[in-house]
Amino acid sequence: MLNQENPPKFSNSFVLGIDADDTLWENEAWFYKIQDRFFELMSSWSAPQDTNAALLENERASIPQYGYGVTSFVRSMILTAIQISNDEIGTKEIAQIVSWGDELIDAPVDLLPDVEETLSELSNNHHLLLITKGDVLHQRAKVENSGLSDFFWNIEVVGEKDAAVYEMLLNRYGINPEMFVMIGNSVSSDVLPVLNIGAKAIHVPHHTTWELEIPDPKELEKVDFPIAQSISEVPGILSGWNE
Amino acid sequence: MLNQENPPKFSNSFVLGIDADDTLWENEAWFYKIQDRFFELMSSWSAPQDTNAALLENERASIPQYGYGVTSFVRSMILTAIQISNDEIGTKEIAQIVSWGDELIDAPVDLLPDVEETLSELSNNHHLLLITKGDVLHQRAKVENSGLSDFFWNIEVVGEKDAAVYEMLLNRYGINPEMFVMIGNSVSSDVLPVLNIGAKAIHVPHHTTWELEIPDPKELEKVDFPIAQSISEVPGILSGWNE
Repeated sequence: MLNQENPPKFSNSFVLGIDADDTLWENEAWFYKIQDRFFELMSSWSAPQDTNAALLENERASIPQYGYGVTSFVRSMILTAIQISNDEIGTKEIAQIVSWGDELIDAPVDLLPDVEETLSELSNNHHLLLITKGDVLHQRAKVENSGLSDFFWNIEVVGEKDAAVYEMLLNRYGINPEMFVMIGNSVSSDVLPVLNIGAKAIHVPHHTTWELEIPDPKELEKVDFPIAQSISEVPGILSGWNE
Repeated sequence: MLNQENPPKFSNSFVLGIDADDTLWENEAWFYKIQDRFFELMSSWSAPQDTNAALLENERASIPQYGYGVTSFVRSMILTAIQISNDEIGTKEIAQIVSWGDELIDAPVDLLPDVEETLSELSNNHHLLLITKGDVLHQRAKVENSGLSDFFWNIEVVGEKDAAVYEMLLNRYGINPEMFVMIGNSVSSDVLPVLNIGAKAIHVPHHTTWELEIPDPKELEKVDFPIAQSISEVPGILSGWNE
């Protein structure tokens, strides 16, 4: 059953799980750009901070069923616009919000500094699994357009990044948790659930963090993980663990 | 790397790819129910057949970026409503369309006849891979709610079902195409691309087929595949191939 023609290339090295949005390329910057336009669109009914609070409320409520992608964001903006304007908003504005979603889907994939060189280096010694939330078609298109897909052993688009999902993935690939390291910008999605299942994680912070991805400080008290100021520091951290 | 603790259970039997919507459970019936309400909503501007044509046009255009799920369908209805009504439709109606999406997401999973017994029988002798298009969170929720998830080796939610995607999946699991059989209700998605890569397929027709899933008759001329009138005929067809 398991592939006999493609035996494992590396038998004693870590498998690296790598997040995509805001770890490999800019993502939130695009969302913030659209959000600013949305605040402007709603400004005759509501101040930006109130629009933001209402939008976050709708986003939070939609995550269990609609997840984290562009389509979920567009749905939340439409509902927020109708609520805040008390049904006064016009269909031209609704169509505009839908078109902002298309703009997000078509946004160029801007790699973050040092990403290409670092993945190239890492892929010489490790299996790299790209693990990302969001809409399956859009996330796969971004990986294709990034020019990075050849560095990856496989690409996994998941609905949520919690301990159960990481366990399912490790089980699918037959990876021992001790040999798995997740690398990403979100403490909530890329670090805590991974530490929870006995694997390792390296935090590579991005300059912005979406409010729904900010962890409860209490969750951080009992855990310890390295923080890389740039993805280029990851190979050095891994070497330290391998010694 | 590959899982040593879970060696293959069956070494000489087919791996079965199984479609979900309208193969294991009702799906289009729910979409048609909502579509009828949409035709009714638009009836002061447009006859049902014209609304349907405009909706199909929007659906076809959105597939490459938004795929086949509920969110894509809702986006197409919103755009169609705004176009057909010449911006006259109200935001209350837009909010209603959004809520129809929620209704589809929450629709119960009604198994088709003989599905549970047949999967139980098949899973005794084969690895079963559920392979479905759509929104990743929603499709995984449906599998969970179906009560069938224990029969499956793995669940794959893909953006498109073409030959390249089937090849990627077979490669991921190390499955020889000669040992793979896809079972599903869509000739376009479950049969033709699978035959194209040298694997086998069994067509289990559903009583309805969405217009965008109807194949070009020319594509059917040079291929041959068994048609099961019910999924319960699948084990017998497989036995014939094994002899």
